[in-house]
Amino acid sequence: MKVDNKRPAFQMKHLSSLTSDDWIELALSNPIEILIDHAHCERKAAGVAIQLMFRYPTETNLAEVLSPIAREELEHFEKILYFLKDLGHSLKALGPPPYGSELAKNVRKEEPYRMLDSFLIAGLIEARSHERLSILALNSDNKSFRVLYESLLESEARHFGIYLKLAKNKFSKDETCKRLEELAKIESEILSETYFLPRVHS
Amino acid sequence: MKVDNKRPAFQMKHLSSLTSDDWIELALSNPIEILIDHAHCERKAAGVAIQLMFRYPTETNLAEVLSPIAREELEHFEKILYFLKDLGHSLKALGPPPYGSELAKNVRKEEPYRMLDSFLIAGLIEARSHERLSILALNSDNKSFRVLYESLLESEARHFGIYLKLAKNKFSKDETCKRLEELAKIESEILSETYFLPRVHS
Repeated sequence: MKVDNKRPAFQMKHLSSLTSDDWIELALSNPIEILIDHAHCERKAAGVAIQLMFRYPTETNLAEVLSPIAREELEHFEKILYFLKDLGHSLKALGPPPYGSELAKNVRKEEPYRMLDSFLIAGLIEARSHERLSILALNSDNKSFRVLYESLLESEARHFGIYLKLAKNKFSKDETCKRLEELAKIESEILSETYFLPRVHS
Repeated sequence: MKVDNKRPAFQMKHLSSLTSDDWIELALSNPIEILIDHAHCERKAAGVAIQLMFRYPTETNLAEVLSPIAREELEHFEKILYFLKDLGHSLKALGPPPYGSELAKNVRKEEPYRMLDSFLIAGLIEARSHERLSILALNSDNKSFRVLYESLLESEARHFGIYLKLAKNKFSKDETCKRLEELAKIESEILSETYFLPRVHS
């Protein structure tokens, strides 16, 4: 195993654990599959933002914030589609890792907690994407992949910040931070379970 | 009742009936409610495009075509949000007319017919939006409303064309046109049922 994988200097402080070297090796050895999976992640992230707009259609300012997020996720989705196409690849169905569905089990059913948990989990997924895309941007063998990931990762960190701000606008700072810490631990535990397929969130 | 409402010179030829003068009067008398409802329509149309991308993730070129549609619907959604905000209004929940759910009942459950019907119904909704937005662009009392609707309506016609093309790429011209005619008749019948609330598709 290579042990000299670079780590980003800027680390999302709210994640409860760092990505393992095992994941880095698996991801770097399967660049196309990881990229196709990331295209699906962008598409799903757009779906999540729109789903939240649907669920809370009259929540002040929510649509103004989430609609541009959804558009940006779709732009990135399209960017990856054309990048793959240039390489002779296309989108294909990939079995998702348990990450998303396991995280979703931790969304409390009653409001307003459902809203808080939904914002924070959406944010944590963005934060983890930011960490992993940063690793891929630093360590991918191929320069065009490094440049692509570099171009995608800034928005992941920004979206995390937006979801955290949405939570803090609606809930107290204490309640938000306490729940974020709980969910971040759960997120790390889910990732610590062995999952052998190369996925952005395996 | 006013009888001098202007009609657009360019009429979507695939619609089975013209909008009634009653609808025009109701819509012109309730400009804010119609506009809020149209914001919801743009949001829903983005949701439909993304939903189709989710349902057929590996269908060749589908995502490349639908993702930009979804982004454009979201841009228009945001444009209306800010237009409303400038007027001191904001998004509010509005009970939808039966139009969407009644149309959805006509989507056949088995593939590939489900795909054909989904494309054609999405297209017919865009075509009807184009007709009605054209009427609002011609007849609204307030110039800023006329300009807004004028800026929104071109994409409705273009999206109809895209959905029709998606259908024709996958199905024969005969099958597509026959089913489109059937669904267009159903669409007109649904609109001919009296519904008293001012909605884009009431």
